Amino acid sequence: MNLPIAKETVKNLLAEKDIANVARATIRQQVAITTGLEQLSGEKFVHLEIGVPGIPASKVGTDAQKQAIDNGVATIYPIISGLPELKDNASQFIKAFLDIDIAPKCIIPTVGSMQGSFNLILECSQLDENKDTILFINPGFPPQMLQAKILGAKQACFDIYNYRGDKLEAKLEEFLSTGKIAAIVYSNPNNPAWYCLTEQELQVVAKMADKYDAIVIEDLAYFCMDFRKELSKPFEPPYQSTVAKYTDRYILMMSGSKIFSYAGERIAIVAFSNKMFDREYPRLRQLYGLGKMGDNYVLTYLYAASSGTSHSAQYALSAMMKAAVEGKFDFVKTISEYGRRAKVAKEIFDRNGFSIVYDKDGDVKLADGFYFTIGYQGMDSEQLLTGLLRCGISAMALDTTGSSQPGIRACVSTLSTDDDMKALDERLALFVKLQNEES
Amino acid sequence: MNLPIAKETVKNLLAEKDIANVARATIRQQVAITTGLEQLSGEKFVHLEIGVPGIPASKVGTDAQKQAIDNGVATIYPIISGLPELKDNASQFIKAFLDIDIAPKCIIPTVGSMQGSFNLILECSQLDENKDTILFINPGFPPQMLQAKILGAKQACFDIYNYRGDKLEAKLEEFLSTGKIAAIVYSNPNNPAWYCLTEQELQVVAKMADKYDAIVIEDLAYFCMDFRKELSKPFEPPYQSTVAKYTDRYILMMSGSKIFSYAGERIAIVAFSNKMFDREYPRLRQLYGLGKMGDNYVLTYLYAASSGTSHSAQYALSAMMKAAVEGKFDFVKTISEYGRRAKVAKEIFDRNGFSIVYDKDGDVKLADGFYFTIGYQGMDSEQLLTGLLRCGISAMALDTTGSSQPGIRACVSTLSTDDDMKALDERLALFVKLQNEES
Repeated sequence: MNLPIAKETVKNLLAEKDIANVARATIRQQVAITTGLEQLSGEKFVHLEIGVPGIPASKVGTDAQKQAIDNGVATIYPIISGLPELKDNASQFIKAFLDIDIAPKCIIPTVGSMQGSFNLILECSQLDENKDTILFINPGFPPQMLQAKILGAKQACFDIYNYRGDKLEAKLEEFLSTGKIAAIVYSNPNNPAWYCLTEQELQVVAKMADKYDAIVIEDLAYFCMDFRKELSKPFEPPYQSTVAKYTDRYILMMSGSKIFSYAGERIAIVAFSNKMFDREYPRLRQLYGLGKMGDNYVLTYLYAASSGTSHSAQYALSAMMKAAVEGKFDFVKTISEYGRRAKVAKEIFDRNGFSIVYDKDGDVKLADGFYFTIGYQGMDSEQLLTGLLRCGISAMALDTTGSSQPGIRACVSTLSTDDDMKALDERLALFVKLQNEES
Repeated sequence: MNLPIAKETVKNLLAEKDIANVARATIRQQVAITTGLEQLSGEKFVHLEIGVPGIPASKVGTDAQKQAIDNGVATIYPIISGLPELKDNASQFIKAFLDIDIAPKCIIPTVGSMQGSFNLILECSQLDENKDTILFINPGFPPQMLQAKILGAKQACFDIYNYRGDKLEAKLEEFLSTGKIAAIVYSNPNNPAWYCLTEQELQVVAKMADKYDAIVIEDLAYFCMDFRKELSKPFEPPYQSTVAKYTDRYILMMSGSKIFSYAGERIAIVAFSNKMFDREYPRLRQLYGLGKMGDNYVLTYLYAASSGTSHSAQYALSAMMKAAVEGKFDFVKTISEYGRRAKVAKEIFDRNGFSIVYDKDGDVKLADGFYFTIGYQGMDSEQLLTGLLRCGISAMALDTTGSSQPGIRACVSTLSTDDDMKALDERLALFVKLQNEES
């Protein structure tokens, strides 16, 4: 085995790629580093940095998409507000798995949730001249912060690590009481840290949003992946937790990429609360001749952004949601594979002396799912990530996600076989041996 | 026949829809008016307002897309810079039909040219703090002006009607000499007026762009639809005219929506000149840690906008371009149907006393194609459009496209049968009768 890679080799590669601190590397830089080290060492890495689906797309989806193409949709512009049957099925899907009532007209397909959040951040920043700031509850998904930057929207953020439970309200109020916050963005379950806000915390978010008239943008990319609960039964409790239970000032984003392993076709939905969809904003009317938030999202922002979303992929998403609602497609069971992998991988980390950074929701141990966070004996992120890279393990430092904690994010998507787990175990042992020798 | 519709009925409907001037109605308002009048009159309209493909998508494309889905691409994130085989085939396609050399790496798929221009306008407005204005050569495509508005980019424009030929240089210089123009946007053939810039005019655009370091964004949505020339033979002259023959400061947009009738899947390419793709901009490096225009387009803007384009649709576009390059798929012949329809429709307008507004390229009569412009004896756009609506014909006023000429844009996409042409003829005759009676 050509591992560990010499310190000098990693250092030189980083210099060559113009990366001052590996813990601040973007995901694209991280991929470039890993590719470089794989070539230099001749060793295939354990890839914990990549957050891609590790499961094939369902036949329900692909069959529906191919049928739509056979029916001639490739030549027909999609309606920007979305395929009517998709809107209906998504409304049912939201009722079945979130127990929330949203009218079909308020549900809009987007080119992945990336397009969803890009245009929501853009619209929220234009609703009211006095509310010019987007608040990110971090750690979070770095591209959403990049979106705000690109669009010239001001942003604020805090690391939730020290503000869970009873401490959350005062922290939110500190930002919201400025009156500047247009929207609050977070994901639940959280990417990268996989915590889930508790019902108490969601109530606090809702209360603060209502008190200061801010919009909650809840990213449900990992919908129903809190495998501690039995979320797979449509129309039966328990349901996926959501802020929508506690306020009308919400917009949900649900991507098909992870829950349905449909990342390739860039398909997602944005679901406005019935109230937000029809809410009138004088500034929007002044700018675009249309006043309602929902009308502008569709006819101003999405129209200009791409004039709709792949027509055939809308049929795929529609069919998968319908099958899930009817109990014919257990998507939760399919993706619970990620929970199995996380359980095994976490045990391996634990056995080698690592610990989970974001470890609890209230008093309850975090769920096993797509991501988890890892630290090692107080070591800073740069040292930790460099050490892991030397041993053939690639990951993403928490620093890039707005976290103030030392550690890395690990994704289980590529840990599909026993051999993958064995490689992880051996390399972590090598990392520990190296630390002991060098300290 | 329930036509003509009473003046009062049209007036009341416009009031109900809160539309002060029908000639300033957006396309979505226009559709609402037409739908309303169809319901009120019980008459199906002749739809000249809609610019959608009127031809089925090619089997080459749909077969390739379905095959890609069968091969599992629905689950795999597309590379944001594009499918390698699409980039290769697009490079060949551009060589075959434009006689221009662009390296595959400089060609990027987008979610329709709408996403292409949205992100080009955004990027161009951030390249240099001193160049903050996008110049539109009008008449143009209204959503592109909306994009600049949404993004907060300053815009300038002029109607080319009085500045064709020798007058173009001085007019361009008037804008460019301010030093504020980041990019010049136009379409060729032109939407809505279907003029084609002459070689002399393209040279002038190129010369001014070079003199003042502005980027030319050339929208080739109606690529190879100047049916006056035989453009269907790959690698044989004549070629589609382009500014790329005369400058390196260009970016081309080529949509699959019209040339391949693939509008439903939202697939297009943006092709940077080799020079522009690799051009370094200090301000981009400062903002995003990447300096090159092409790298930022992909890794900053498109990454944030949607993280790529439908994976399966990229295979469709790739296959259609490849087949066209190999002479196995004569896409020009397929879409020349639009030219046939335009010839017939224009004769009908002419016979009824209407005239073409934008009528010549230099000394040469305009081509027959997807769109043409129509005026009637100096009548203003509001009167003309109202009169046509009363007679069951829907269209878009030129006013919304940045034109200062009275008239309408007519699209031939829905004029597919002899009956459609007959209905057009009868209704135009009714319009003339009505004008004669009422004047």
